Amino acid sequence: MQRNQDLDKDKFQRRALQVKEAQARVTKYAKLLDAEFVPLSQSCGRYLVETVIAPHPFPAFNRSGMDGYALIAADIEGCSSDNIIWLQVVDNIPCGAVPSVEIRTGTSARIMTGAQVPGGADTVVMLEVTETRETDGITYVGIRKAQAAGRNITPLGFELGPDEPVLAAGTLISAGDIAVLAAFGVHTVKVHRRPKIGIFATGTELLEVHEPLQPGKIRNSNSPMLEALVREAGGEPVMLGAIVDDLELARSKVQMAMETYDFVITTGGVSVGDYDVMGDLVREQSTEMLFNKVTMRPGSVTTAAVRGGKLLLALSGNPGACFVGFHLFARPVIGLMQGSLYPYLPEWTATLGEDYSKVNNYTRFVRARLEIRGGALFAYPASIDESSVMVTIKDSNCLIIVPPEQRGLTAGAKVTVIKLPGEIEG
Amino acid sequence: MQRNQDLDKDKFQRRALQVKEAQARVTKYAKLLDAEFVPLSQSCGRYLVETVIAPHPFPAFNRSGMDGYALIAADIEGCSSDNIIWLQVVDNIPCGAVPSVEIRTGTSARIMTGAQVPGGADTVVMLEVTETRETDGITYVGIRKAQAAGRNITPLGFELGPDEPVLAAGTLISAGDIAVLAAFGVHTVKVHRRPKIGIFATGTELLEVHEPLQPGKIRNSNSPMLEALVREAGGEPVMLGAIVDDLELARSKVQMAMETYDFVITTGGVSVGDYDVMGDLVREQSTEMLFNKVTMRPGSVTTAAVRGGKLLLALSGNPGACFVGFHLFARPVIGLMQGSLYPYLPEWTATLGEDYSKVNNYTRFVRARLEIRGGALFAYPASIDESSVMVTIKDSNCLIIVPPEQRGLTAGAKVTVIKLPGEIEG
Repeated sequence: MQRNQDLDKDKFQRRALQVKEAQARVTKYAKLLDAEFVPLSQSCGRYLVETVIAPHPFPAFNRSGMDGYALIAADIEGCSSDNIIWLQVVDNIPCGAVPSVEIRTGTSARIMTGAQVPGGADTVVMLEVTETRETDGITYVGIRKAQAAGRNITPLGFELGPDEPVLAAGTLISAGDIAVLAAFGVHTVKVHRRPKIGIFATGTELLEVHEPLQPGKIRNSNSPMLEALVREAGGEPVMLGAIVDDLELARSKVQMAMETYDFVITTGGVSVGDYDVMGDLVREQSTEMLFNKVTMRPGSVTTAAVRGGKLLLALSGNPGACFVGFHLFARPVIGLMQGSLYPYLPEWTATLGEDYSKVNNYTRFVRARLEIRGGALFAYPASIDESSVMVTIKDSNCLIIVPPEQRGLTAGAKVTVIKLPGEIEG
Repeated sequence: MQRNQDLDKDKFQRRALQVKEAQARVTKYAKLLDAEFVPLSQSCGRYLVETVIAPHPFPAFNRSGMDGYALIAADIEGCSSDNIIWLQVVDNIPCGAVPSVEIRTGTSARIMTGAQVPGGADTVVMLEVTETRETDGITYVGIRKAQAAGRNITPLGFELGPDEPVLAAGTLISAGDIAVLAAFGVHTVKVHRRPKIGIFATGTELLEVHEPLQPGKIRNSNSPMLEALVREAGGEPVMLGAIVDDLELARSKVQMAMETYDFVITTGGVSVGDYDVMGDLVREQSTEMLFNKVTMRPGSVTTAAVRGGKLLLALSGNPGACFVGFHLFARPVIGLMQGSLYPYLPEWTATLGEDYSKVNNYTRFVRARLEIRGGALFAYPASIDESSVMVTIKDSNCLIIVPPEQRGLTAGAKVTVIKLPGEIEG
């Protein structure tokens, strides 16, 4: 047991970092990835490399907001039901057409919603309040109510002037952004490449998801979860299977992965036991350890290292700790690699919905359910609150940050929560 | 103009429905789609067909929560720094192993986090507070501090008992759900097929996104936006291009699409102008019109029809109205077709961040920015509030519902907002 005791002694003396300091150490190595071009239809969920500048005003012409008649407001001043003013209809302008004549006093043009308002006209009267008559082959439109100049017309450049910024660099492209890019003719979009992220699990206890249960063993649930979390964050997961608890094999596999992929995430093998290969691996000379202990629960043994400029994040094998560790450390890295303006999950204030009695000398990230009622936020801690517990992950949409050395929190207390990705439903 | 005047008369007499009634009319035709099996790794964002029941307890054995020694709590009662109690170490249980012997009084087993606690043991003492010695080839562990039975052990079935529901039918599968499904060996997941949704734009004014701008014309921004919105809602968009304003051609194209796809969405061609082919099409005998006017702004001309049991939703060509109409009418249909438990977007109460003076006889859905500060929600209307305006779509994460016939709203008023999909950032 001599070797183990020496190793253990070293392991026990880990220097614990605060979460913010640990985040700063890993995000420092989140290298911005290259740009690539993707078709507009594939750009949703990607991050813009460069600010998009409007190549032309929008709208690019004075646009009719109504189906009706384009005319000169001054021509219909004083009209009423008793004094219908009739204007000659000199043009018919469907959408996409160019007006054929200027509107002069006494004339008007039939116009469609979205069509270009003819020169001379300064207002559009909606079709529903007009009537028409034909005399000697000439059509006239009758107007019963005056309206102001400018009405129902969106002037050229009203939405955006030329050379105005449309979308800022670092924008996460949404469906609404796609509409705007399309309107300006951006059919291929310059985005940051998605990081390729190698994912390993360690542990001889792990069965594949499809394997039948065996005594003492568990199925590997962390790898599929990390795969989904990486995708949700915009990364491209590469599943590298399980590493058995063999330091030599682990070393070569992890080294190869770090040479091949942008970022490597492992789960398991970081606590103080005999078989914790990841912990041993990051203590090696060729690898710069960034931290191997964080003042947080769950996941205090979360470990990060750098080798050849590439990050290795070794998350705890405890499902709850793996989940929390991903959101605190991996997600910001994946966002920053793509130039995200908001790499960290939002932190909100909420009212604690029920007592939370657990105390700890480390900051606790308690899985919880966030509810929005009456314009206010309420957070309810998961009924089972243990780092090893997995089932509560599925019911959590936020993490309550419980600072250390408190005497428990009572219902009604203000707490800070980290909003987890996804919609708040129900 | 005779034909047009008759048609117009008919068009003007549209009976307007309230939004809720219009929603009820379309969602009635949202047929639940067939089930299909997808690999677990592809199941994120899909909806479960059946409730998943735990096939075994979880954990399936008494699980150690620590690296340390499994022993009998009663054996170390009364120990202290001055009275270290030494227990013989009779087993070494790594993760995934089966204990080889029962723990009897005076013995213990070295055990790893996550390993199966041996029979007889009722507590696990963490490695960091133990010491070991070897005498005559026999290893002993020394304990200085007593601890209660049950400590650091997660009992069999603690997270979920056998036959308990794991995830309910209709659950939208998240990364956390993937972990739980994996733990229970669900490697293929029974989900509802994604609806295939045909998307048309109408309008002779439309240019393709890659085309250079031409006088009087605009690029088709609604189709790419709808494509992204359909995908975001879990549907599979099928882009069918633009329909020119020709009733015969439109009829055959739309009919073919309704026979081929689960749901057809069009944009444009629903207002009261001469060229509004969709409006004319849904007035035909073979088609049952559900509504062609809704008491809402923007998008009062939103039209829905059924033919052969298939839904046609004809959204306004105005980008803002198209966006709002999609969220109010198309998104719930797409969710319901997949069995979603929450097909409607959440409605929250928020405090209006600034005055909103526009009044209307219809309910207004005002694009707005939702902010969360100090545990409360604030909504800020977009600076330009016109239905035809497109650029504000990109900056909106909620819609403020402004009821009709109000005298404007002042900052500080409580309003109801519809939360749009996506994270609240910034």
